[in-house]
Amino acid sequence: MIEKRDAPSGTMRAGVLHPDLHLSVEERPVPIPSAGDVLVQVSAVGICGSDTHYVRHGRIGDFVVREPLILGHEAAGTIVAVGAGVDAARIGERVSIEPQRPDPTSAETMRGAYNLCPHMRFYATPPVDGALAGFVTIGAAFAHPIPDEISDEAAALFEPLSVGIASMRKAGVGPGDAVLIAGAGPIGLMCAQVARASGLTRIVLSEPDPERRTRAQDFGATETIAPGTELAPVDAFIDASGVAVAVTAGLRALRPGGRAVLVGMGADTMDLPVSLIQNREIVLTGVFRYANTWPTARALVTSGAVDLDAMVTAHYGLDEIAEALDSDRIPGMIKAVVHPQVSRCATRGGPESTRKDRS
Amino acid sequence: MIEKRDAPSGTMRAGVLHPDLHLSVEERPVPIPSAGDVLVQVSAVGICGSDTHYVRHGRIGDFVVREPLILGHEAAGTIVAVGAGVDAARIGERVSIEPQRPDPTSAETMRGAYNLCPHMRFYATPPVDGALAGFVTIGAAFAHPIPDEISDEAAALFEPLSVGIASMRKAGVGPGDAVLIAGAGPIGLMCAQVARASGLTRIVLSEPDPERRTRAQDFGATETIAPGTELAPVDAFIDASGVAVAVTAGLRALRPGGRAVLVGMGADTMDLPVSLIQNREIVLTGVFRYANTWPTARALVTSGAVDLDAMVTAHYGLDEIAEALDSDRIPGMIKAVVHPQVSRCATRGGPESTRKDRS
Amino acid sequence: MIEKRDAPSGTMRAGVLHPDLHLSVEERPVPIPSAGDVLVQVSAVGICGSDTHYVRHGRIGDFVVREPLILGHEAAGTIVAVGAGVDAARIGERVSIEPQRPDPTSAETMRGAYNLCPHMRFYATPPVDGALAGFVTIGAAFAHPIPDEISDEAAALFEPLSVGIASMRKAGVGPGDAVLIAGAGPIGLMCAQVARASGLTRIVLSEPDPERRTRAQDFGATETIAPGTELAPVDAFIDASGVAVAVTAGLRALRPGGRAVLVGMGADTMDLPVSLIQNREIVLTGVFRYANTWPTARALVTSGAVDLDAMVTAHYGLDEIAEALDSDRIPGMIKAVVHPQVSRCATRGGPESTRKDRS
Amino acid sequence: MIEKRDAPSGTMRAGVLHPDLHLSVEERPVPIPSAGDVLVQVSAVGICGSDTHYVRHGRIGDFVVREPLILGHEAAGTIVAVGAGVDAARIGERVSIEPQRPDPTSAETMRGAYNLCPHMRFYATPPVDGALAGFVTIGAAFAHPIPDEISDEAAALFEPLSVGIASMRKAGVGPGDAVLIAGAGPIGLMCAQVARASGLTRIVLSEPDPERRTRAQDFGATETIAPGTELAPVDAFIDASGVAVAVTAGLRALRPGGRAVLVGMGADTMDLPVSLIQNREIVLTGVFRYANTWPTARALVTSGAVDLDAMVTAHYGLDEIAEALDSDRIPGMIKAVVHPQVSRCATRGGPESTRKDRS
Repeated sequence: MIEKRDAPSGTMRAGVLHPDLHLSVEERPVPIPSAGDVLVQVSAVGICGSDTHYVRHGRIGDFVVREPLILGHEAAGTIVAVGAGVDAARIGERVSIEPQRPDPTSAETMRGAYNLCPHMRFYATPPVDGALAGFVTIGAAFAHPIPDEISDEAAALFEPLSVGIASMRKAGVGPGDAVLIAGAGPIGLMCAQVARASGLTRIVLSEPDPERRTRAQDFGATETIAPGTELAPVDAFIDASGVAVAVTAGLRALRPGGRAVLVGMGADTMDLPVSLIQNREIVLTGVFRYANTWPTARALVTSGAVDLDAMVTAHYGLDEIAEALDSDRIPGMIKAVVHPQVSRCATRGGPESTRKDRS
Repeated sequence: MIEKRDAPSGTMRAGVLHPDLHLSVEERPVPIPSAGDVLVQVSAVGICGSDTHYVRHGRIGDFVVREPLILGHEAAGTIVAVGAGVDAARIGERVSIEPQRPDPTSAETMRGAYNLCPHMRFYATPPVDGALAGFVTIGAAFAHPIPDEISDEAAALFEPLSVGIASMRKAGVGPGDAVLIAGAGPIGLMCAQVARASGLTRIVLSEPDPERRTRAQDFGATETIAPGTELAPVDAFIDASGVAVAVTAGLRALRPGGRAVLVGMGADTMDLPVSLIQNREIVLTGVFRYANTWPTARALVTSGAVDLDAMVTAHYGLDEIAEALDSDRIPGMIKAVVHPQVSRCATRGGPESTRKDRS
Repeated sequence: MIEKRDAPSGTMRAGVLHPDLHLSVEERPVPIPSAGDVLVQVSAVGICGSDTHYVRHGRIGDFVVREPLILGHEAAGTIVAVGAGVDAARIGERVSIEPQRPDPTSAETMRGAYNLCPHMRFYATPPVDGALAGFVTIGAAFAHPIPDEISDEAAALFEPLSVGIASMRKAGVGPGDAVLIAGAGPIGLMCAQVARASGLTRIVLSEPDPERRTRAQDFGATETIAPGTELAPVDAFIDASGVAVAVTAGLRALRPGGRAVLVGMGADTMDLPVSLIQNREIVLTGVFRYANTWPTARALVTSGAVDLDAMVTAHYGLDEIAEALDSDRIPGMIKAVVHPQVSRCATRGGPESTRKDRS
Repeated sequence: MIEKRDAPSGTMRAGVLHPDLHLSVEERPVPIPSAGDVLVQVSAVGICGSDTHYVRHGRIGDFVVREPLILGHEAAGTIVAVGAGVDAARIGERVSIEPQRPDPTSAETMRGAYNLCPHMRFYATPPVDGALAGFVTIGAAFAHPIPDEISDEAAALFEPLSVGIASMRKAGVGPGDAVLIAGAGPIGLMCAQVARASGLTRIVLSEPDPERRTRAQDFGATETIAPGTELAPVDAFIDASGVAVAVTAGLRALRPGGRAVLVGMGADTMDLPVSLIQNREIVLTGVFRYANTWPTARALVTSGAVDLDAMVTAHYGLDEIAEALDSDRIPGMIKAVVHPQVSRCATRGGPESTRKDRS
């Protein structure tokens, strides 16, 4: 029942994490797209802190790697086959993958919060395989077409950009407002870029590492501070650090009625200043993935308001996934991208440019 | 410049808390209404936990009783004189007092959140005197007219009812929704009454005391539970207990995307389940007093949707304020009301009914 | 692939409207539930003004009856078979049917506004058949279980109640607020009932017919007026009349910043007071069906906050659909209900009660 | 009771419109600041379409010029004296004037919508005088300090910019979204600038005049069209034309659930497509001035996100007000600015730059 035009068959190579924390590249059957799905040949996969966390710890919270797991959930590629009910004209389309499969009938999905669907199946979250492989399937509506001028790497990074978009939406701020962001890692920088694109005129980044503070200025920060520095009140606070002391400092920096958004993952519980939350009627919430962010991501990247290519600091082939998944230790690293169709990248500078208009 | 018609002069009696925690009834000059103010002869004053807290501890947070302080901020009475610029026709009007004086030019006031005004002067909050006295002044717009059918006691209790209204507004729920309220004290019961008036069809009250659980059913609870009882998910949670374990239990009871409102005062900080807040995108906030609630209170009490008279469980005269301010220790007590124009109430049942249509 | 337990087969009887506006009862094959669907034996179908409009005019806007069409979209019944992927344990469940089939992948559906899905297939809207038949299929998530104490007729009327719920949600009002509703037909009364259940304390119904004004008081109106009567400002206005002069009067009755919701269908265009909308920053919007209303409907009807049985003023069997579809001309009629399993109802008072607990 | 430091006394010159539509420059007493007010020496006044409308027609709606009226409500200057209760340290401060005096105790003001206050006194709206004069008073909180790098002209244009900010706030759109703006006059261009500053990536300007379409590209338009051109759906529509056919076209361009904001003034009533509003659940509203916009204006102009100096296309002295008030007829004109301290501007290019740092 699959519409095929030169649809692939046989096997593909995939980057697999084993329960004993061993990483390997293995031959796997190419998946067959079910009704409503598309099959995507994967061109680029961003490495996320959660991938690295699985490699190092074998679990995140209640999600435990009990069976071999294909990692990777920040992915882009080209549609090469479609399942039943999907327009075959989409074959050949370059897409950015939104790596979630919510249940369309859950109460959360039906009210538009499909990211909170209790029956979600999400890439690279046990027992659901991810995208560090030659091919992957996804629901047709979650394979978002991208224009030629967006590179494969940028398209892969729509996923962490979506976390930034979701965070800024919850921050409830707009043009001329001020935000404090704690943590200048990839997510903090994504938030800063979205804040800049949203017209905020004061974007304070709090970060202990001086080099990361400096680079933050390229991604939207109008002010960078070391943690603990006093600062004028802000309208919103985004924690991208997961550190309790940063959260408390951020809450203290908020104006009355300001909003705090927790996106960085850290301890399960934190000692929070509830009397401050009460006395200033602060609104505190968290971000769990994203919903309906890809069209926004596409618009912001296409217009140049957000620059994702500048965040790609290293490229790897599939045979180098062990290196890629440990690359967060490299000074200056922001995002590493793996190219699953390539065995090895001659230089960290990456394979030839992947924008369609340059190839 | 005061418009007078039989305006009072000379002295009045007032209930005063001294820095050494001594309570006394003293003669004080009757205040003179400034421009824009009205002078109210006080008929009823509800006793709040914060009054009692000042009596027992001499402070609440940073607010310390350093000079003698007139207590009381839940008050009703009759306008007997007006300051410059106020319509003298208001003299004779029965009013419920909203005990706040925000700065009309602060950013918070100008955006409608005058309760968060940093220059607020609030009754019975050092160094601002309260309403446990024969007379009191307030801004004309904060003396809200009440119809004849509302009693003085009920009019005094518009203040704690306003806390319930403000809490339910922040809870973001409506008809057919479910709320969990922790704590069946006066504020918890006010929240339950407002929840019932708002059409919520599942109102769960969590409370350790079995007698308080039973009485909660008269004020809107559709379900009462002992803390720690498992329950089906709710759309909103209101903490009126100030107890950390209740807050954590309430957060765990919320559906994805649910809202938690902290109104009960407790410790300055609490260990909160931030990963839960993140994973379910729970929205947590607090209530600090209220803004624009009196018209709602009036509508709900006039229509009978909220019953405040049933919450008055004891009456005191001004010479009995020490008893009144310790009355929270009496089993079955919900709200004690002091009648400043009366020295002693013959029985705890109170003076004769104060509704204008019955007097 | 259908799970069956005594699943019906063969034919059923259905009420069909032909392009020449002829109505007939015909034998049709019992539909087979597709994957994800349930098959419902229909017990009650409310007659809506849109059904009647199709019978009289053969079209509503761009929707034209070009092929024979089964009418009816307010329906309840019992699940008798399930399609692939649906839990067979649901067979035997009494359900209220939400008569829409949105595309789960449209942008509108994914952001929670599935009622606005451009690919919607809706009961009794050409060319999609409706529920005036022995059996009907619907997506499993759109067959909402109902408790025993809700009658079949009430369960059928969840649909027009949902219009009232959707309207009141858009009105943006809550406890203690005031609403003006124009038109005391079924939808106006549904809105009034939801307004009452939402704690509004002033519910003004404007209606030219004195008898309808009188009966409106049973369904929540606190005040009834003839069109053109002056009235104190209201917080929200709901037009359930479709009459331009009523809309203009309603807009004029709004307080600054008030909201107007157009639910009644009338002319395609209306001459509206735009300078008034501007000067008072009125928010005007419309209601197109509903989304996520059934759980609210169930809670409100189960709790008794909304009474649907009292709105059923006539009962018909399937052989009486011509009468039923013309019953809006009968004085005092609110809602007629057709019982598709019954040929004729002996009296307009209807068949024996259909609540499961009474049968 | 006025705090003075070289406070002016005696007379000033003012531009006055008479009921017979005669314009004159007259000697008037310098106003004395009341308690809470400041006295501002006016440096720049933008000419608005409403000023011109009064000159040509003697009225706007119910506001009729029955007594001589000083025109002008887009003003900036320097504080030269303060009334009682205002910090004298503000003397010497350069300010942008928010030309409204709401009643701080009205229900609208207390909920943050002070622009809707029914007791508003607004500059240059009969019988309240405006700012085309040597000096003017305003409430201290409505004299907003500006930094040195903002010119007097730009500071005067915070007022029309505020209309753009208020419009975009109501449009409910953000980064990556699309807006259609009808009309490339000053307000349309202000909206376009704010849309650009807010991160919208598709800003369509519909305008019949080809020259105005061209210049719109300098102020944020990403696409310009002639009225009637088909276009892909947008998320929001702002009418800055006041033309009914443009409003209908804008409503038709909206996606389901989109918002329309009417800011342009035209006929009192318009024939609007209500069935479209219903079927797509469009939200239609209007803008009446602004509230809480000056801090946003200051942030956007200071950061360079909005360029107001580029919108100033002519300068006039006070003796040239007749010319200034007719300058909208000059091709290419966007905003004319009058300098009340100057009799005549040698060239339309204006007096020497007024930024403090350049003077």
